[in-house]
Amino acid sequence: MSSASPDTAGLDDLIGRIRPADPAVAEAAREHQDRLTKPRGSLGRLEDVSVRLAALAGAVPAPVPAAPAVAVFVGDHGVHARGVSPWPREVTGQMVANFLAGGAVVNALARQVGAAVRVVDVGMSPEASAVVAGLPGLERRSVRAGTGDITVEPAMSRAEALAAIAAGAAVAESLVAAGHDLLVTGDMGIANTTASASIIAALLGVGAATVTGRGTGIDDETLAQKVTVVTQAVARAAADGAGPDDPVGVLASVGGLEHAATVGFVLMAAAARVPVVLDGVIACSSALVAARLAPDARAAMFAGHRSVEPGASAALAALELPPLLDLGMRLGEGSGGVLAVPVVQAAARVLAEVATFDGAGVTDKHTD
Amino acid sequence: MSSASPDTAGLDDLIGRIRPADPAVAEAAREHQDRLTKPRGSLGRLEDVSVRLAALAGAVPAPVPAAPAVAVFVGDHGVHARGVSPWPREVTGQMVANFLAGGAVVNALARQVGAAVRVVDVGMSPEASAVVAGLPGLERRSVRAGTGDITVEPAMSRAEALAAIAAGAAVAESLVAAGHDLLVTGDMGIANTTASASIIAALLGVGAATVTGRGTGIDDETLAQKVTVVTQAVARAAADGAGPDDPVGVLASVGGLEHAATVGFVLMAAAARVPVVLDGVIACSSALVAARLAPDARAAMFAGHRSVEPGASAALAALELPPLLDLGMRLGEGSGGVLAVPVVQAAARVLAEVATFDGAGVTDKHTD
Repeated sequence: MSSASPDTAGLDDLIGRIRPADPAVAEAAREHQDRLTKPRGSLGRLEDVSVRLAALAGAVPAPVPAAPAVAVFVGDHGVHARGVSPWPREVTGQMVANFLAGGAVVNALARQVGAAVRVVDVGMSPEASAVVAGLPGLERRSVRAGTGDITVEPAMSRAEALAAIAAGAAVAESLVAAGHDLLVTGDMGIANTTASASIIAALLGVGAATVTGRGTGIDDETLAQKVTVVTQAVARAAADGAGPDDPVGVLASVGGLEHAATVGFVLMAAAARVPVVLDGVIACSSALVAARLAPDARAAMFAGHRSVEPGASAALAALELPPLLDLGMRLGEGSGGVLAVPVVQAAARVLAEVATFDGAGVTDKHTD
Repeated sequence: MSSASPDTAGLDDLIGRIRPADPAVAEAAREHQDRLTKPRGSLGRLEDVSVRLAALAGAVPAPVPAAPAVAVFVGDHGVHARGVSPWPREVTGQMVANFLAGGAVVNALARQVGAAVRVVDVGMSPEASAVVAGLPGLERRSVRAGTGDITVEPAMSRAEALAAIAAGAAVAESLVAAGHDLLVTGDMGIANTTASASIIAALLGVGAATVTGRGTGIDDETLAQKVTVVTQAVARAAADGAGPDDPVGVLASVGGLEHAATVGFVLMAAAARVPVVLDGVIACSSALVAARLAPDARAAMFAGHRSVEPGASAALAALELPPLLDLGMRLGEGSGGVLAVPVVQAAARVLAEVATFDGAGVTDKHTD
């Protein structure tokens, strides 16, 4: 890794700002949780979330997040040409127009939970960009116009990956500066589950078939082709020297621009000690890269849901992050992350607002 | 069953008001769901919820529920004397005081999702009632002061069960009349998971050990005692003639007053075609009684979460209701139901607000 090169100075600085969670605060949060008027442990994983939020905030209780925001990073994928998706590539741009008009699922779910939606072009193709030309609301931070075909060439250069990481970090920084206290990852990019599976296979050292799924719902024939493509991409990346010891190398070699932006988004959330809810397999693969770069960044991550994509479960297991929801979803856009926002808020609220046994005059259970 | 007796006239009338969901509306909702700008099926169980909400409302899309309310029905249990819980019986009253002061978990979660909380005494003991004497906000609909010890006598008479069902129905009716469009079941009553397990064992004809759990967190010795108690209660009820063909008989023989009230609450929600989110094992056992009385009532039921209690899973399987959340919770109070409210609202919102492929100018996937 070229940690001394000028290119990585920004990333190194960001990583250096990520501090470990304070175990003493976590312990104090657990003790407070145990004094609340309910049987100990009776809120299951909600209690763990409340403790992790306190440890991240460095306060017992943590403030209840009140202003969530989802960032939808958009990129196109050269590997689309390999027949990994039944959706035409033009859908990336059409869906961005749908986001900007407020008509997509992520918009509806964001309205339900009171989340702001930020749509950010980090790598749309010229065709996709043309579809949305002149539409208000799209944040342009494009690093390059779509990735290369990862079966035969790197998705992007290392410098481009670093630039996209910086773009994602800048979005998180601006959201936090605007008062958002709970971030959610989102993505759009036809064929991007192929890049996600490739990142996960390369970083975890597992076979493509283990982590490659049906994405938006492909048939058996397309799935077989997709597994072949992921296998080729990971082998090509390894031949180019991009292995598990070099997370940025893997990201640049087989990832996507929205993946790279999500890496930066997650790292900046961790640096700002703001919780970030991961959506599906694009987020999970990006979070894996982020955690390899900065293991302490895990403290800021909350797994919104268990996507149907097998790679998401593999990545979450490696990250040791149990998902909050498990509804059989596989849409992306940030949908599963946004849907989990009230669960995260509820966990914080329990620790912040529920009375203690002493305070409420409730008798604790017999412990003899 | 004494369907001709004057006692059951109110229940018979309520059951008669419950109409089947319209399969044509469900089909229209499914077709509309399939035209939304997302891959078909990509929202998993959220899609099923949206279709069921439309079928219940008789409209595509269904209105998005905007005013949820949870009713916490409170009762005491004579079987507490058998050592089935480490919590002193006085906790029932103390927790009611906590609810009224807004300090319990259900209050915090209700604030998170914007739900009203109604606390209703349907069977508190004189000691519990004394704890809350003079406190504002408690709705008094007490039918009797706690149940009998179900190992040796019926929990209540059939007339008392019918009166508690009517009380729960009246609460649902008043909430709907006040504009609440999404109801949630809640409960409080030390020892009430013992009554729940007894109802489920009696109605499903399964052994007590299969459906009896650790409730608020009991040790192995207490669990063994609880299984013995449930076995005794179900055997005693059967000897008294209360078998699976007589749901009200089972409810009266081994249930609780909060269970009976919840039966009425669920039936009235179904009659009013208002969705009702079930919380944990108390709700699931009550919903089982309701569905035996009126199979079409199932159309209004949504399983908020999978409680740790094994009886809850057994009841939900019998009801064919997949739970929305699975967070390892086992608190009661309505906590798991309230936490699922945004998921139900989100499902309705997707069907109501997301653009169609045609409307948004998004190209559908290749289907060749």
